[in-house]
Amino acid sequence: MSEQEPLDVGVLGYRFMGKAHSNALARLPMFFDDAPEVNRHTLVGRDEEALADAAEQFGFEHTSTDWEAVVDDVDAFYNLGPNHVHAEPSIAALEAGTPVFCEKPLAPTLEEAEAMRDAAADSGLVAGCAFNYRFVPAIRYAKNLIEDGKLGEIRQVRGQYLQDWLVDPEAPWSWRNDEELAGSGALGDLGAHTVDLARFLVGEEVGEFAEISGQLQTFVEERPVEGSDETRPVTVDDAYSAQVEFDSGAIGTFEASRVADGHKNDHTIQIHGTEGSLKFSLERLNELEYKGADHRGYETILVTDGSDPYLDHWWPPGHVLGWEHTFVHENYEFLSAVRDGGEFHPSFEDGYQVQRVLNAIERSDESGERISLA
Amino acid sequence: MSEQEPLDVGVLGYRFMGKAHSNALARLPMFFDDAPEVNRHTLVGRDEEALADAAEQFGFEHTSTDWEAVVDDVDAFYNLGPNHVHAEPSIAALEAGTPVFCEKPLAPTLEEAEAMRDAAADSGLVAGCAFNYRFVPAIRYAKNLIEDGKLGEIRQVRGQYLQDWLVDPEAPWSWRNDEELAGSGALGDLGAHTVDLARFLVGEEVGEFAEISGQLQTFVEERPVEGSDETRPVTVDDAYSAQVEFDSGAIGTFEASRVADGHKNDHTIQIHGTEGSLKFSLERLNELEYKGADHRGYETILVTDGSDPYLDHWWPPGHVLGWEHTFVHENYEFLSAVRDGGEFHPSFEDGYQVQRVLNAIERSDESGERISLA
Amino acid sequence: MSEQEPLDVGVLGYRFMGKAHSNALARLPMFFDDAPEVNRHTLVGRDEEALADAAEQFGFEHTSTDWEAVVDDVDAFYNLGPNHVHAEPSIAALEAGTPVFCEKPLAPTLEEAEAMRDAAADSGLVAGCAFNYRFVPAIRYAKNLIEDGKLGEIRQVRGQYLQDWLVDPEAPWSWRNDEELAGSGALGDLGAHTVDLARFLVGEEVGEFAEISGQLQTFVEERPVEGSDETRPVTVDDAYSAQVEFDSGAIGTFEASRVADGHKNDHTIQIHGTEGSLKFSLERLNELEYKGADHRGYETILVTDGSDPYLDHWWPPGHVLGWEHTFVHENYEFLSAVRDGGEFHPSFEDGYQVQRVLNAIERSDESGERISLA
Amino acid sequence: MSEQEPLDVGVLGYRFMGKAHSNALARLPMFFDDAPEVNRHTLVGRDEEALADAAEQFGFEHTSTDWEAVVDDVDAFYNLGPNHVHAEPSIAALEAGTPVFCEKPLAPTLEEAEAMRDAAADSGLVAGCAFNYRFVPAIRYAKNLIEDGKLGEIRQVRGQYLQDWLVDPEAPWSWRNDEELAGSGALGDLGAHTVDLARFLVGEEVGEFAEISGQLQTFVEERPVEGSDETRPVTVDDAYSAQVEFDSGAIGTFEASRVADGHKNDHTIQIHGTEGSLKFSLERLNELEYKGADHRGYETILVTDGSDPYLDHWWPPGHVLGWEHTFVHENYEFLSAVRDGGEFHPSFEDGYQVQRVLNAIERSDESGERISLA
Repeated sequence: MSEQEPLDVGVLGYRFMGKAHSNALARLPMFFDDAPEVNRHTLVGRDEEALADAAEQFGFEHTSTDWEAVVDDVDAFYNLGPNHVHAEPSIAALEAGTPVFCEKPLAPTLEEAEAMRDAAADSGLVAGCAFNYRFVPAIRYAKNLIEDGKLGEIRQVRGQYLQDWLVDPEAPWSWRNDEELAGSGALGDLGAHTVDLARFLVGEEVGEFAEISGQLQTFVEERPVEGSDETRPVTVDDAYSAQVEFDSGAIGTFEASRVADGHKNDHTIQIHGTEGSLKFSLERLNELEYKGADHRGYETILVTDGSDPYLDHWWPPGHVLGWEHTFVHENYEFLSAVRDGGEFHPSFEDGYQVQRVLNAIERSDESGERISLA
Repeated sequence: MSEQEPLDVGVLGYRFMGKAHSNALARLPMFFDDAPEVNRHTLVGRDEEALADAAEQFGFEHTSTDWEAVVDDVDAFYNLGPNHVHAEPSIAALEAGTPVFCEKPLAPTLEEAEAMRDAAADSGLVAGCAFNYRFVPAIRYAKNLIEDGKLGEIRQVRGQYLQDWLVDPEAPWSWRNDEELAGSGALGDLGAHTVDLARFLVGEEVGEFAEISGQLQTFVEERPVEGSDETRPVTVDDAYSAQVEFDSGAIGTFEASRVADGHKNDHTIQIHGTEGSLKFSLERLNELEYKGADHRGYETILVTDGSDPYLDHWWPPGHVLGWEHTFVHENYEFLSAVRDGGEFHPSFEDGYQVQRVLNAIERSDESGERISLA
Repeated sequence: MSEQEPLDVGVLGYRFMGKAHSNALARLPMFFDDAPEVNRHTLVGRDEEALADAAEQFGFEHTSTDWEAVVDDVDAFYNLGPNHVHAEPSIAALEAGTPVFCEKPLAPTLEEAEAMRDAAADSGLVAGCAFNYRFVPAIRYAKNLIEDGKLGEIRQVRGQYLQDWLVDPEAPWSWRNDEELAGSGALGDLGAHTVDLARFLVGEEVGEFAEISGQLQTFVEERPVEGSDETRPVTVDDAYSAQVEFDSGAIGTFEASRVADGHKNDHTIQIHGTEGSLKFSLERLNELEYKGADHRGYETILVTDGSDPYLDHWWPPGHVLGWEHTFVHENYEFLSAVRDGGEFHPSFEDGYQVQRVLNAIERSDESGERISLA
Repeated sequence: MSEQEPLDVGVLGYRFMGKAHSNALARLPMFFDDAPEVNRHTLVGRDEEALADAAEQFGFEHTSTDWEAVVDDVDAFYNLGPNHVHAEPSIAALEAGTPVFCEKPLAPTLEEAEAMRDAAADSGLVAGCAFNYRFVPAIRYAKNLIEDGKLGEIRQVRGQYLQDWLVDPEAPWSWRNDEELAGSGALGDLGAHTVDLARFLVGEEVGEFAEISGQLQTFVEERPVEGSDETRPVTVDDAYSAQVEFDSGAIGTFEASRVADGHKNDHTIQIHGTEGSLKFSLERLNELEYKGADHRGYETILVTDGSDPYLDHWWPPGHVLGWEHTFVHENYEFLSAVRDGGEFHPSFEDGYQVQRVLNAIERSDESGERISLA
C-alpha cells in the first residue's frame, strides 16, 4: 500500500457524474489496495445549499463556489460540469500545475477542445478525458483479442448508441437540447463515446478517421420547459449517423439516437476482421460475443473470471459487475497515473481527436460533402 | 380449385434461383389449393446437357437454349439468369404479351432498369421483381403492425445484410465479382433486398428515399480463378453503407457486407417510431421482435400461428418455416396475379425505384457528395 | 439414380402427419437424387370423402378404407394414425412382409409396444419409429460432436418440451386428452420425443435409463366438446417431469407441458460433459449452442453449411431450413434402408425402449417410488 | 435522515461474504439516505493477522477472535461463517438479545435449522437469512407482477442453478466438499437459493412444498488437497434435482450443478401461470422476460427504470447494476427492520422452511420414495 500522502481531489459538479465519481473514489480502498489514497477534498458548485447536501452525501470535506480557488489547492481536479464549462476551469487547473480529469465530450466546440489539448500538452501533466467505456472489462478483453491478432486485419467497425428518453415530444427541454450549452445532441453526448471506443479498440490497427460523411436529424423542434407553459427550441440533433473510412482503408458506420424507442442505454460496437469478429452491448456489459478463426459463430463470453481485466479485484466468476464499476476502474487508472506521473488514456489528446471526428460529421451534415481528415 | 387451364411457365436459369422457384412451383398444389395450376413447361439455358439434367430434376417438360422462342410460347416467363441478362429477355417477353417474373436486382444499370420498367408499364402486364423477403410471414406481420399505427410515426430505419463468403482473399472469383456482369457487389446483391424491404415496410409512411450519401469499399482487389493459376480483378464492392433521409424527414442507415466474418445470411431490419420499434433477422426468420406502446422492451413473437400471414397453409404453431417458403409465397402471389390480371408487388416499378437508390449510393461514393432524389 | 422399381407406399392417416410425410415423399426427387423412387400408392382412412380429397391433395393414386388389404399390397406401410391404432396394422404389415414406418409414440401401452417390437424382430424387416427430431441437422451435428468426444464424459442431460395449446381451460377436448386413445398426454406426445432424443444423442455414452422417478399432473380435469354443451374428462397428463440416472451414473431431468404459456413448440435439450456442453431448441432449429474445451461460453452455430448433415442437398449457408425438412430427411433414410435392406434408426426397438421409460415414469408417479429399469 | 444512534454491527467471517456485506454497509450512506447509520464495529475470525488486514480493508473499528464476547456487544450480529458455525453463534446472539443476519443455508442440518428458528421465535428479534436474490430488482418486479395476478393462477415453476467450478476432477478439495462442514453440496449451496426464490415468488399463490422426490449425484469421489499429494473424499453432491408438488397442486422442478460446464453463476427461474409466464437468469440480472395475457411471446424488460424496485437509489435507466447491489438492498432492509423493530424476510423461519425442503430431497434420494411435507 502506498506510503505517499493522500491525494486531495477537487470535484466540480455534483449531479449524475459527481455521484458516479464520488462513489468510485469511495470504493477504491476496499477493492484496489494499490490505488493511491484519496481525500475527497472539495466539492465545487454554484448552489450552496445543494452543494452542502451533496458534499455530505458524497463524503467531501469542503465545498466551494469558486473553482478558481480550488484548482491550485488540490492534487487533482475533476471537471464534471456541463460541456460549456469544460474548457476554462480545465485549462486553469493545468496552468496551475494540477492534473485534470474532465468528463466527455471534451468540449462543445473543436476550438475549445484544441485549446484544452494544447494546455495539457504544454503542462506535461496527466489530463484525462473520462470516456468510461474503455474500462468495461469486456471491452478491455476485446482490446486484448484485437491486439493479439485474433480478428486478423480489421475491415469493418459498426457502432451504435441508442437511447429513448426523448422519444416523447413532451419530454422536457434541458441544457442537453441546447447547442450553446451542449455543443451537440446525440452526436456529442453519445457519439463521442462510440468514436472513442472505436479509436481505443482498433486505432492501432486502422489509424485515425480519414474520410467522413455525416447526417444529423432533429425530430422534435421544440420542447416544453418544465414547470412553465413555454417551450424552447431544440437546437441540437436527436440522432446522427456517419460513415467513415479509416487511414488503413477499413470502413465504419456510426449512429446514435435519443429517440430509439425501447433502448435505454444500448451502446453496441461490432468489429469484423479477416480472421474473426466481435460484438458488445452495454446493456449486457459483462458479456462479449467473439468469433475467432476456429469458430463458426459467436461465442458468448461472460467476462467475469479472475483472469479477466480488473476482475481479480471483485467477485468470483459469474458475479456480474454493473455500469458504475467502469468509474472505479477509470479512477484507479487516472489516480495511479497522477501518483506515478504515468500516462493515462483516454487523454485530452484522445478527447480532441474524438472532437475532430464529431466536428467533421457536423460539417459534412451541413455541406452535404464527405470531409477528409487525412 | 381453379377450373382454368394450367399456366405454362418458362424459366430461364437453372442454378440456385432456378431450383428455388422450381421447388416453389412444385409445392404450391399441396399447400395452396387456390393457387393457379402450373405446368413447368420449358427450362431455358445454354449448356444442353446440364439443362437436361436440371429439367429432369426440377420437373420441366421441355428445355430450350433459345429464350426468344420461349418467351411467347408460355403464359409466364421467369427470368432467373445473371443480372446482365435481365433486361433483354424480360423486355422481349413483355413485348410478346407474356407476364414476367425477374430476379433481383432488376438490372445491373439504372438505364436498363428504366427500360424494363417502361416496358412493363407499356405492356400493362404483370411484371414482378422477385424480392422474396417481402414474403416472410414475420415481415408481413411487421408490415401489418406498421400499417395499424402500432409504431406511431416512423423516424428511423436501420438495415443490414451481412454475409462472409468472401472473407477469405482466396475465395474464388465469380461473375458476382465483376461489374460488367453483376453491376455491383454487395450493394446490388444484398443492398437491393434491404432497400426493397425498407420501401415495403415503411414506404407508405415515409415516402421515397430523398437524400442519400453512400460509401463502397473493396477489400480484396483480385481473386483466384478456380482451376487455374490466374487471378482476375474484383471490380465491385465487398461492402457498402448508406445514410438517407426519406421524404417525410425520417432517416435511415443501410449497410451490407460479404466479408462480415461469422454472418452467413444475416439480413436485419430495425425500425423506430414514436410509439414503438421492431427488429427482424433473416437468420431467425420465424421471429419478430416487437415493442409497442404498452411494452417496456421487445417481445419475441414466433410468427407461426394459424392467424399469421400464410401460416394457415402450413403447420401448427411453433413448427417453423424455412427460407424456401418465401419463394412459395411469392410464386403464389405472382401466379395468382397473372391468372386474375391483378396487381403484384414488388413490381418492375419497385425494382426500378430500388435501382435508383443503388445508383445514387454509387454516385455519392464516387463524388463524395450527398445525392438528392427528391 | 436407382435403376430399381419405384417403391409403392401405403399410408394410413391423412391429417397432420399424413400431410407432413406426403410432402416429404413429394420433395425427395428434387433434392435427394439417390433416394429411392416412390409411388404415393394408397392413402388409407375411414371417411371416404375426406380421404378422396386428401389423396388428391397429397398426390396418392388410390384410396382405401381397409388397411388389411393395403398392408401386403405395398412395398412400405406408413402407420400415421392415432396411437391406439398403431399396433394392429403395424404388426399385420410386418407379418405380411411389408416394412413399416410408424409414428411416435410407438404405442399407447408398453404391452403393445413390446408386441410391435417383437413383430419387427421376428420379421427381420425395416421397422421405423418416426422420431423426426433425430433428423434435424443441428441434432446430427451435435451427435457428431459427442461421438468425437468434444464434450468428454457425459454427466448431465436436461430435456424439456414446452407447448401451450391447452393453457386455456376452454380449449376443446380431443383424442389427445383421452387415456384410452392416446395412452398418455404430454408424456407420450412430447416426452417420447425427448427421451428418444436423449437416447440418440448420448445413449452410446451413458447407456439406458436405469433409475427413474416421475411425476404427472393434470391441471384441467375436463374440457368442452366442440360443437356441444358437454364436457369430457381429461384422463391424461397436462405435464410430466422425470429425473433419471443412466447406466453410466450420468443423470438427467426431463419435462414436458402443454400449458407452458408462451411456448409453442419449444423442445430443448442440454447436455453437460467433462469437457463441454451443448444446447438446442426446436424453435431455433437451425442453431446449435456449443461449448467445447477451448471455449469459455457457448458458441452459436448456424448449422446450414454445405458440410453440415443433409445440407448439401439444400441451399447455400444461412438459408435456413424449417420443421418439415426433418421429415424429408427421415423419409430419405427410411426408404433407403427399405430399398437396400439396411438398418434404420429409430427402430421399433428404439420406440419400445422409449416406451419402457414412459411406462416407468407413469408407474413412479403412481407408486411414489423410484423405478429401476437396470 | 435518522437521528438515532448508529447501529454497531459485528461480523463473523471476513472472506467472500464478509467482503460482500462490508461493501454493502459502506455503500448505504451515499445511496440510501434513510438507511440506519452503521458502525462497522467488530470483525470476528480466528486468524489474527488475516483478521487485522481484513478489518483495515473492510473498514472495521475492532477485531475479535471470540464471537461470544461480541454477540452481546453489538446492535446486530452478522454470521457469515461456514455453514457448520451458523447455529451456535446465531443462537447465542439471539439469546443475548442481539438481532442476527445469517448467511444461507441456515444450517447444515434440519435439527440445527429448527433450533435456530426456535431461538429466533423465542427472542422476538429480527433474525434474517441472507438469501440475497430476493433483492434483485428484476425479481422484485417479477414478484409484483405475480401479486398483481399478471400470470393468473400459477401452475409450474422451474428453477436451475448451474455453475462449473468443480467440472475439473483436479479442482481442489474445500470445506464445501465435506458433509460435516457444509451439510450438503450443490443442494445446500445453490438449491437453497432456488427453493427460497420459489417460495418468495409464488409462495403466497401455491403454498408450501407438499410432495417431493429428489436425486443427488456425486461425479468426482475425491479431490486433491491443495499444496499436498493427498486427496480427500467428496462427501456431498455435485448436482441435485427435485420434482415437487405444492399445496395448491402446482408443480415444480429444481436442479443445481457445480459441474455444468460453461455456466458460471447461472441461476434461472421460470414460472408459468394460466395467464402468462416469466423467466429470469442471474447472469443477466438486470433483465426479466415476461409474457402477459396480451403478449404472444416473452418481452425482455430491462429493469433499470427509476420506478423499478430500488432503482430510484441508483443511476438513470439502462445503467445496469451488478451482483453486489443485491447485498446493499438486503442490508438496507435488514438494518431498517432492526432499527424500526419491523419484520424482515427472508427470516430464520424462511430459512428453516427451505431447510425442510432440502432435507426432504436428501431423504427422498436415500429412500427412493416421494416424501410428503404436507
